[in-house]
Amino acid sequence: MSRSSVQIGADGRLKHLLTTEGLPAEMIRHILDTADQFVSVGEREVKKVPLLRGKTIFNVFFEGSTRTRTTFEIAAKRLSADVINLNVGASSTSKGETLLDTVYNLQAMDADMFIVRHSQSGAAHLIARHVKPGVAVINAGDGRHAHPTQGLLDMYTIRHYKKDFSALTVAIVGDVLHSRVARSQIHALKTLGVPELRVIGPKTLMPAAVERLGVRVFHDMTEGIRGCDVVIMLRLQNERMNGALLPSAGEFFKCYGLTAEKLVHAKADAIVMHPGPMNRGVEIDSPVADGRQSVILPQVTFGIAVRMAVMSMLGSQ
Amino acid sequence: MSRSSVQIGADGRLKHLLTTEGLPAEMIRHILDTADQFVSVGEREVKKVPLLRGKTIFNVFFEGSTRTRTTFEIAAKRLSADVINLNVGASSTSKGETLLDTVYNLQAMDADMFIVRHSQSGAAHLIARHVKPGVAVINAGDGRHAHPTQGLLDMYTIRHYKKDFSALTVAIVGDVLHSRVARSQIHALKTLGVPELRVIGPKTLMPAAVERLGVRVFHDMTEGIRGCDVVIMLRLQNERMNGALLPSAGEFFKCYGLTAEKLVHAKADAIVMHPGPMNRGVEIDSPVADGRQSVILPQVTFGIAVRMAVMSMLGSQ
Amino acid sequence: MSRSSVQIGADGRLKHLLTTEGLPAEMIRHILDTADQFVSVGEREVKKVPLLRGKTIFNVFFEGSTRTRTTFEIAAKRLSADVINLNVGASSTSKGETLLDTVYNLQAMDADMFIVRHSQSGAAHLIARHVKPGVAVINAGDGRHAHPTQGLLDMYTIRHYKKDFSALTVAIVGDVLHSRVARSQIHALKTLGVPELRVIGPKTLMPAAVERLGVRVFHDMTEGIRGCDVVIMLRLQNERMNGALLPSAGEFFKCYGLTAEKLVHAKADAIVMHPGPMNRGVEIDSPVADGRQSVILPQVTFGIAVRMAVMSMLGSQ
Repeated sequence: MSRSSVQIGADGRLKHLLTTEGLPAEMIRHILDTADQFVSVGEREVKKVPLLRGKTIFNVFFEGSTRTRTTFEIAAKRLSADVINLNVGASSTSKGETLLDTVYNLQAMDADMFIVRHSQSGAAHLIARHVKPGVAVINAGDGRHAHPTQGLLDMYTIRHYKKDFSALTVAIVGDVLHSRVARSQIHALKTLGVPELRVIGPKTLMPAAVERLGVRVFHDMTEGIRGCDVVIMLRLQNERMNGALLPSAGEFFKCYGLTAEKLVHAKADAIVMHPGPMNRGVEIDSPVADGRQSVILPQVTFGIAVRMAVMSMLGSQ
Repeated sequence: MSRSSVQIGADGRLKHLLTTEGLPAEMIRHILDTADQFVSVGEREVKKVPLLRGKTIFNVFFEGSTRTRTTFEIAAKRLSADVINLNVGASSTSKGETLLDTVYNLQAMDADMFIVRHSQSGAAHLIARHVKPGVAVINAGDGRHAHPTQGLLDMYTIRHYKKDFSALTVAIVGDVLHSRVARSQIHALKTLGVPELRVIGPKTLMPAAVERLGVRVFHDMTEGIRGCDVVIMLRLQNERMNGALLPSAGEFFKCYGLTAEKLVHAKADAIVMHPGPMNRGVEIDSPVADGRQSVILPQVTFGIAVRMAVMSMLGSQ
Repeated sequence: MSRSSVQIGADGRLKHLLTTEGLPAEMIRHILDTADQFVSVGEREVKKVPLLRGKTIFNVFFEGSTRTRTTFEIAAKRLSADVINLNVGASSTSKGETLLDTVYNLQAMDADMFIVRHSQSGAAHLIARHVKPGVAVINAGDGRHAHPTQGLLDMYTIRHYKKDFSALTVAIVGDVLHSRVARSQIHALKTLGVPELRVIGPKTLMPAAVERLGVRVFHDMTEGIRGCDVVIMLRLQNERMNGALLPSAGEFFKCYGLTAEKLVHAKADAIVMHPGPMNRGVEIDSPVADGRQSVILPQVTFGIAVRMAVMSMLGSQ
């Protein structure tokens, strides 16, 4: 069974959110349209709607991430769900329990939804294939594979500022090789019809045969960024910086760090994005991160709305 | 003051739940009957009842246990209580504060209920003797002594599948010596009138004079399991496996691990139980754990209902 | 911009709570009067008011403190707010994110209030200067600087038992040098007009030129405590006890530990306070901690009400 058939039911409705790969353009647009309604909830006096009242949602994080876990927790609470945070790395798995036993146990507690982060690619998909009908799984990041809610919030952000995808030039810059965020962005951007999609980075941080995803590869940043409407910077994991793949953080910044000097080659109204948390002075320079073209903080705000959209769609089945 | 008089008030009502020892059959049946009503709450669209709205419940875990803490947290949230999770090992006690100072402080925050897990036998009882009238304590596991909600959910499970306790043969298998779960099961099963109660395990994992609890001891599993209606497997703690008490996990599995081959000696409609988390291939073989006689996951579901029952009884005083 | 002008708006209303220094007597009294109403909430069957329903409050603890975090969590939940606990030490900052980036990110999630604890003096103030209008910051302890809700709950406690500040003799005893609690108490007590304010402790644990704060310094406890209406003991941090500043915990107790023998020199109706957690046998003797003059547990109860008061004032802007 392919991943897309696991996440979309026979009736065409979203059953799980595992990846942006194979997610139809219509479904992506439906999620973004639903998110529109939730952006306003965050601006209200009472930031709460009763859509998931009495539902039990588990944040099951086999890999630590306070930031992502927090965004899902906020989204769930604003939908009035009961949220249980489980840092599973520290408990059952250390007791020798298998991933599926952990999930079956939580499911037996009448769980309605699992938000899953795992260091292994395919973990959320494995869980989705084994839960009961009516129980939904959201992939909050699995290995190098996918981080679909991040990809979707990025689509929301681009649509918000650029309206139409059909004439855009978009560049994704940095460590594409290890980035599940990049993968989720690339699939969604291709599906939404972006005509010119570029990836920029050193050869050592570029996946083999990345061109097959329909992107153009650049190793020179000035060239790659030229004429772009959207520049998406990726986070450089600390653990890469002293490794064999990169000479040093300083060297990386010199070549691929986004500075005002380099950004000038993009369009004058280009927007700058970053999934956070930023390494200032490594992949992005502070004047750019805090500058007028940066939409990094709006990404965070839209992220809550997009997660509320996905959760409300999955939870009201 | 005996433990039973601490947990049952002069008016015959439950004040705390510390142990199944001395808990009258009538009280156990009342808890199980109350749980019946809560099983259906878990199946509803809105899994919430307002019984403990505005009550403050502290999950005070001096010993880590994500799984048990989670079940109480879910139960409390479905009763609409406010739950505060405290992993006390990591905070006040490391600052040199005594157990009772910690409890007095939380009580001064207008706590209504404490769910307590502690590595020392008697900790929950100590706390119960010192809290104010109207504040309830539930023992969520104290040393090797007791884990009464586990014992009660096991009674619920057995009653669900076997209806009547008065003609049952029940076997508890494994590390009885270190098991607070086994102690809570044995007291409850005896009180409910199980005529034939067996414990099965190696001599090194059997408490001295265990027969005084009214059980028959078997060291041979095939013999012990013969004719049983209920087979309860105990978890083998990892830390026992390389110790002086056991040759090895493999050796244990050979003698006392529940396999289909051994289970055949029980009655054809015997049920298999385990408190979780399971060590597959150590105390239980996967085909049995996942087989048609296994009621291990229903135990988890019933566990939420039983905890809701106990909490609602204690919290509405 | 001075700290007091950051925390009080041009309209005279409280915008943030960062320090008791410069907080007008009228504002302190307003907070204590508001807290009066919340004390009764803790005694109700349903300990909940809907004042902050739908508000998102972040407990951002860059320094661990289960106890203080818990009091704010309870206060927020009793006000019906959604609370998100963030132990930031363990996450974003270790990923190299700056303090302000962390805050900007949480603010982008439509936060309404930040409760901040940080090991660096001035951290909460820095955050308050950078948040958007309408977002409130409460300092839950910053380095050696301030812990204003603790200071205010101490004022509440003193007012509760002594009614009037204008004729009191108050002594603060112990490690004044490292204590943000002492600083917050001294500023509030001076503002409320306490005529005789004393600090007692060894020279090595007394700040340079502490007299400038308007206190009298005593190195002899019997002398310092004589005639006091209020004796406030400070917690001696474990890490001080084996250091260069103190000979030993036993020696400290002999000189500055509060015993019944020493307390006899205070007024007969003097009250004894301690911010907790106590080191029994170090700064305070058990018979005094648990004695009839001790108001240490009422401090905790009043602390919830005072925090509810501050949060409700800040959250309903």
